[in-house]
Amino acid sequence: MRETGFPLAPGAVIGILGGGQLGRMLALAAARLGFDCAVLSPRADAPAARVAAHFVNAAYDDPEGLAELARLSAVVTYEFENVPAAAVSRLETLGRPVAPGARALAVAQDRVAEKRFFEEIGAPTVAFAPIASADDIAPALERLGAPALLKTRREGYDGKGQTWVSGPEDAEAAFARIGAHPAILEARAPFVRELSVIAARGRDGRIAAYPPAENRHENGILRLSTAPAELAPETGATARAIAAGLLERLDYVGVVGVELFELAGGRLMVNEFAPRVHNTGHWTLDGCEVDQFEQHIRAVAGWPLGPAEPFAAVEMTNLLGAEAGDWPALAADPAARLWLYGKHETAPGRKMGHVNRLRPLKG
Amino acid sequence: MRETGFPLAPGAVIGILGGGQLGRMLALAAARLGFDCAVLSPRADAPAARVAAHFVNAAYDDPEGLAELARLSAVVTYEFENVPAAAVSRLETLGRPVAPGARALAVAQDRVAEKRFFEEIGAPTVAFAPIASADDIAPALERLGAPALLKTRREGYDGKGQTWVSGPEDAEAAFARIGAHPAILEARAPFVRELSVIAARGRDGRIAAYPPAENRHENGILRLSTAPAELAPETGATARAIAAGLLERLDYVGVVGVELFELAGGRLMVNEFAPRVHNTGHWTLDGCEVDQFEQHIRAVAGWPLGPAEPFAAVEMTNLLGAEAGDWPALAADPAARLWLYGKHETAPGRKMGHVNRLRPLKG
Repeated sequence: MRETGFPLAPGAVIGILGGGQLGRMLALAAARLGFDCAVLSPRADAPAARVAAHFVNAAYDDPEGLAELARLSAVVTYEFENVPAAAVSRLETLGRPVAPGARALAVAQDRVAEKRFFEEIGAPTVAFAPIASADDIAPALERLGAPALLKTRREGYDGKGQTWVSGPEDAEAAFARIGAHPAILEARAPFVRELSVIAARGRDGRIAAYPPAENRHENGILRLSTAPAELAPETGATARAIAAGLLERLDYVGVVGVELFELAGGRLMVNEFAPRVHNTGHWTLDGCEVDQFEQHIRAVAGWPLGPAEPFAAVEMTNLLGAEAGDWPALAADPAARLWLYGKHETAPGRKMGHVNRLRPLKG
Repeated sequence: MRETGFPLAPGAVIGILGGGQLGRMLALAAARLGFDCAVLSPRADAPAARVAAHFVNAAYDDPEGLAELARLSAVVTYEFENVPAAAVSRLETLGRPVAPGARALAVAQDRVAEKRFFEEIGAPTVAFAPIASADDIAPALERLGAPALLKTRREGYDGKGQTWVSGPEDAEAAFARIGAHPAILEARAPFVRELSVIAARGRDGRIAAYPPAENRHENGILRLSTAPAELAPETGATARAIAAGLLERLDYVGVVGVELFELAGGRLMVNEFAPRVHNTGHWTLDGCEVDQFEQHIRAVAGWPLGPAEPFAAVEMTNLLGAEAGDWPALAADPAARLWLYGKHETAPGRKMGHVNRLRPLKG
């Protein structure tokens, strides 16, 4: 078995669970630093696999696939938070460190555990109640108020697996709408806007946080990020402090995406975090000397983190579904920095690419 | 046979002859725009192959390898100028456009043809004489003066295949030193510094030129590029005009690297050009929104060129041979943007990576 010593020397192989656009951009960043990548994905046409030295085309819970990934890689990371916990355990049993670690993944995979963790670290979040059956909803509504947001405890992304509960009379129907899975009911956050912080923690414990982005979602899917968000300085400092606290308490290695609500008056609440590079951090690809993908690779490889200061303000627009068909106009626009993910099939709402537009930094 | 229509749609495959660091950085740029790459290289561990969707491990003159590359690719480009002309013809016979075209390659491959081409387009260059045998050297020296620089007409890079001739008594020995190949003798250029222009021409005939870089060579190998070079405005304009004239006269598609000498008083002479992305353009990777690699992919794919204005000044330092072993210090330096090429073997003078350091633009 190969010994892993950090920092990893260039030429080492970094394993990536997942083969989508985040894995693809991780692989491109790794290549810049002289690393090779090994991608494990159940999809034969995984976008990340087409820019990686090694490809293991297997299910996430396939023991042989995981053994092959472990054999190839010095360290393993992942590009999405629904990697089976058993896969991570198996890789660790095979002697391969996985970053971010199992605890970060476990907390991020269960919305109730995540909310309790926020409470534990003193990060303000919305009031919530665990929901095991439709019968739990009415009593919870009395405490949380209506309407409230019902979400499956596990899985679900881009607004999938969640629904608004208008009142106690809607309890049965709402529970059915999310597939009658174990759930969480969340009080409505009276937010004026959505923010996020992309931050990283290295193996040396040092933290680098990018300035917060302001985000706009449509139908539960990110449409637009603007960064750096125009914020009161203390709001920005609080946002970064929440991210730093989270990273420290999870003994985290890698990049995290922390989604926040800003309430009237600048008060912040944490919504959720993703233990991976994040769509709201794509602005860093063209606005920072070291983008979130290189930062993640640096952390995972045990390298010192790079600077997280931007040299430009960026407006990032996602290209969803058929919008990627606008590539001829975007290619001709001198102000549009285009990223396309190499996905062969378009579907409504599917993230096919994004566009970064740069502006001078203020102040 | 696949029809090639320009502009190529994302998802198309771009073929690359050659698998070194230039091919690797081309493949990374292509991935950003949603293209896949097919790399043909005789080296099994080619750095570019490890970030490409397809790899044809074959010699450049292998008919089956070339047929496979043609089958995979919508268009083919190359990352070095010593690709056999027959390989390009073969790909074109198979219906695959090759960019830059056969004429650019033919001119760049023969130093005498190149110098004659410079004369033809009115670009000032050093006096020269074709040398077929050692007997041609003494009479040429009378016209060109001594010492003069003897170079093989073909092949040779990074100072290989060239030698100074101190005087007529050195003729026999000098010719032997370069392997007694057909050669060119060049008058010594009384330059005060070396400059280069990286420029691109699209399939629509439009040209984008980056501001010139100032370059320093050691032992015939590029050590340092600083860009934008501090130049008299008219010198910069002349440099770009020389590059533009060259691109137009060759009906060129892609990025070219044009090396120039600046004489006392700001007068310019063209030294040579490389029909490809160029080491003296690596500064654009961190100093421009659209770097030379994306620019080349845009041109080859028939996309509009992007802007070539820098947002930062850059000092680019090559990491040669064992210098790449300094990666721990470079990784820890917040001002060092590191690029490592994924080469598994180090050799003295071998280009293993480079470092870009950014500074604010002047003016």
